[in-house]
Amino acid sequence: MRVALAQIDVTVGDIAGNAEKAIRAIAAAEAEGAGITLLPELVITGYPPEDLLFKEHFIEENLLALEQVSAVCGHFTLVGFVDRVDDALMNAVALCGNNRVLHIYHKRRLPNYGVFDEQRYFTPGEHAGLTEIGGALVATTICEDIWVPEIASEAAAAGAGLLLNVSASPFHAGNGVEREQMLRARARDNGMWLAYVNLVGGQDELVFDGRSLVVSPTGEVVARGAAFEEDLVIADFTPGAKLGASADLAPVLDGPAETYAALVTGLRDYVRKNGFSDVVIGLSGGIDSALTAVVASDAIGAEHVHGVTMPGRYSSAGSIEDSRRLAENLGIDFRELSIELAFAALLDTLEPSFDGRAADVTEENLQARIRGTLLMALSNKFGWLVLATGNKSELSVGYSTLYGDMVGGFAPLKDVFKTRVWELARWRNAQSPSPVIPEAILSKPPSAELRPGQLDQDTLPPYDVLDGILERYVEQDESIEAIVAAGYAPDVVARVVRMTDGAEYKRRQGPMGVKITPKAFGRDRRMPVTNRFGR
Amino acid sequence: MRVALAQIDVTVGDIAGNAEKAIRAIAAAEAEGAGITLLPELVITGYPPEDLLFKEHFIEENLLALEQVSAVCGHFTLVGFVDRVDDALMNAVALCGNNRVLHIYHKRRLPNYGVFDEQRYFTPGEHAGLTEIGGALVATTICEDIWVPEIASEAAAAGAGLLLNVSASPFHAGNGVEREQMLRARARDNGMWLAYVNLVGGQDELVFDGRSLVVSPTGEVVARGAAFEEDLVIADFTPGAKLGASADLAPVLDGPAETYAALVTGLRDYVRKNGFSDVVIGLSGGIDSALTAVVASDAIGAEHVHGVTMPGRYSSAGSIEDSRRLAENLGIDFRELSIELAFAALLDTLEPSFDGRAADVTEENLQARIRGTLLMALSNKFGWLVLATGNKSELSVGYSTLYGDMVGGFAPLKDVFKTRVWELARWRNAQSPSPVIPEAILSKPPSAELRPGQLDQDTLPPYDVLDGILERYVEQDESIEAIVAAGYAPDVVARVVRMTDGAEYKRRQGPMGVKITPKAFGRDRRMPVTNRFGR
Repeated sequence: MRVALAQIDVTVGDIAGNAEKAIRAIAAAEAEGAGITLLPELVITGYPPEDLLFKEHFIEENLLALEQVSAVCGHFTLVGFVDRVDDALMNAVALCGNNRVLHIYHKRRLPNYGVFDEQRYFTPGEHAGLTEIGGALVATTICEDIWVPEIASEAAAAGAGLLLNVSASPFHAGNGVEREQMLRARARDNGMWLAYVNLVGGQDELVFDGRSLVVSPTGEVVARGAAFEEDLVIADFTPGAKLGASADLAPVLDGPAETYAALVTGLRDYVRKNGFSDVVIGLSGGIDSALTAVVASDAIGAEHVHGVTMPGRYSSAGSIEDSRRLAENLGIDFRELSIELAFAALLDTLEPSFDGRAADVTEENLQARIRGTLLMALSNKFGWLVLATGNKSELSVGYSTLYGDMVGGFAPLKDVFKTRVWELARWRNAQSPSPVIPEAILSKPPSAELRPGQLDQDTLPPYDVLDGILERYVEQDESIEAIVAAGYAPDVVARVVRMTDGAEYKRRQGPMGVKITPKAFGRDRRMPVTNRFGR
Repeated sequence: MRVALAQIDVTVGDIAGNAEKAIRAIAAAEAEGAGITLLPELVITGYPPEDLLFKEHFIEENLLALEQVSAVCGHFTLVGFVDRVDDALMNAVALCGNNRVLHIYHKRRLPNYGVFDEQRYFTPGEHAGLTEIGGALVATTICEDIWVPEIASEAAAAGAGLLLNVSASPFHAGNGVEREQMLRARARDNGMWLAYVNLVGGQDELVFDGRSLVVSPTGEVVARGAAFEEDLVIADFTPGAKLGASADLAPVLDGPAETYAALVTGLRDYVRKNGFSDVVIGLSGGIDSALTAVVASDAIGAEHVHGVTMPGRYSSAGSIEDSRRLAENLGIDFRELSIELAFAALLDTLEPSFDGRAADVTEENLQARIRGTLLMALSNKFGWLVLATGNKSELSVGYSTLYGDMVGGFAPLKDVFKTRVWELARWRNAQSPSPVIPEAILSKPPSAELRPGQLDQDTLPPYDVLDGILERYVEQDESIEAIVAAGYAPDVVARVVRMTDGAEYKRRQGPMGVKITPKAFGRDRRMPVTNRFGR
């Protein structure tokens, strides 16, 4: 039996385009002599289609597209689509063959946690997806179905020797390895072959990482698809036998290389799928904007990246020079726009209202907002997408200016803690013959440079402490008491928690970014703004 | 039997404060001689608590608070809280009496549509909430349980003569009447008494409207709580008998009066519950900012409202004068800040980059962003909350400037179509001895005044046409074909749909506002930004 895993990158809502892509993948698998081809979950609509599912005509178009795709399926092929039974919608996969739909399976476990809202849309299936293919009993499942032990063991008990799973499983750092361990255990525990295909590519805040797998009944990985790239994985094996063969075994990707690839993919696909060609980035001379510019250059090409340094009265000479050197290293467009004229004009305009009050965060935010306004003006005039450069640490505690440095259509580092920003920057530097990010940018103490001598550390605890607390508070939902018990100073923890709760209103108005942790701000963490818990 | 419906306004996360409020309400009902008192759904935590539910210590505190509240319950009292059974959370109500918890009911129907995500958090209950109170069989239910016929009819079949429902049912225009009709039908169909308590007050984008009810077995409304205000509703009746008595029968509220009250409540509670005292509003001379200022004055008092006119080179003299007159009518603080200095400075700064290109939307947005920056500077300096003034029509089609006129912590008119803005303004004018909104503001053709002679109607279809299309597209999810079939011009519909889809990225970064329609932008309508459907 030759199995093909067609891990393709489709776009939400592009039903005609997705169907075409599916048809090309099926033809490629057919040319390879595949007996069964798997396409990712909801390949017809893209994943997740969200409230597009409430449009009746969206469902209709998806059903017509399934007909078109099934008509080209000479060999057995699994095609994900949205099924409708009476008024209920189902997350479904059609087993196609002989140029028609042979059998339909409805997903039984509908995830409704984390980034998932499937119970908002779908009714769960009630039946196992068992069919005979080439003399062997084969079980079809969809994504979440394989994450519980019951459905696989039920299939094994029924005599299935091969379990197929079509997924759209979003990335977070380290989950490639976790997922592989889970799938290997599932195959081994049930003594069955397992063929798993995963979607690939970015969709808003999610990145799907591919890495489709074929696992033998002894838990050996026989085939592995590429990470973050489209791939057609071919494997040969016989259900019942222990050994199989494949030439496709992409290397395991982990650590900073994995996270960096996710950032590049997420940014590239947001830019491309939303019809942009170029991006513009405010370069502050700091590490966040530097890493953002490098990720952008790797994602869409340096010739499509525009860097802008926007010095003000508190900017250090080093910051401008370091930004210029970074731009030269990358080979990106670079320009300088001073904020001084506009800053002076706004201070003059506001002077009667401010009525002699002392300078405070107001004047700092003014500078950041002029920079945001300048970037948006370039965006409006030239059609460039503005990238926000903020990281997860500052977004957590609100150490950022709404409508200022938070301006942007996309924020590549949104889910990257500051300590990880440094780690990724050093890792990326090590990948080039000479470092792209100047050492001065890596080693300088972080500063917003919005008042004389300002340093992040005047306001925030050291970043290793801050990130340790935030990981527990934001990602693990630990209480202040539990975080203190882990060894952090009570006053520091209390302050970080207070800042984090108080910054929810800012986060709501910030741009999307790539999810790379188990819990990202956005659809993953739904906190009320009006919230007096712990106050 | 004397029943008390304690429709109180609690705050999400304020567990100690909510418990205190519940205890005061129970004492007040006790003083009235109540035999049964109902408090709203999840009264201990506030509704909806969202991802606070994932914090273990949040659940613990809520359980401790329930103990405190139950200890003061001399008479039968229903107290909503979050129950935990093993690792599962339940949306629960405790029947308390004799100063302890007597019985716990778990909500059986968990809404997971529209603004609701209850299946993200809760496990559904499996048992009816039947108990004997004063010799009568009484059924306890929670919110959604009563919206399906089965649970009430099951209770009636078991012999219950009284059905209790504790709710947190969010407002949309007209739902007071709809809900009352449903509850009357439910009581009549099952020949049972029905006592329904609803939460009151604003929570982020939701407003709970109160209007608790006692309905007799013949479907008569015996008692009705106030709309949008706290109330303690008392009614006397005997399960089994047909007649009852109550002095509490608040008038039915409908039409513009109902919607206006919702806007006032939503804004007032956002301001108050988030610790603000004052708001600041950019007054453009148009109807949106005028109505926003009036709503704000009614919500928090004119002395806490600050109006700012920010003229630029394209502002009409009338706009400044009309704004000044509005401010005088309302008695709010009023100031003038010209955008000209800053506009000239930014144009100078950008001139080398723009390199002789023609003026376009860039220069329009620059003016709007200077205004946003000035409002935020006042906000930073004085701690005032900025109110955005945009309406649902312009937010739908993206006829607004991100980081410009979209700046703000709250947008009271976010869910109000432009045609309804006029309706509400005229209605509100008719409530005062002399109109608060000058007639010139009501009658002038809408204009952003960002280029010479600009009118909304240069870019958009007439607002009655636009709103008709948007209601079908945004709220009913109709296709272009269906909207055209309803009588709208195909090219206009196609353009409105394209603009609406293309503005999703702006809406994601806009402030929250009060939901007043069946489908508001926000948690109610979850569309992908990256979305090629229909393109």
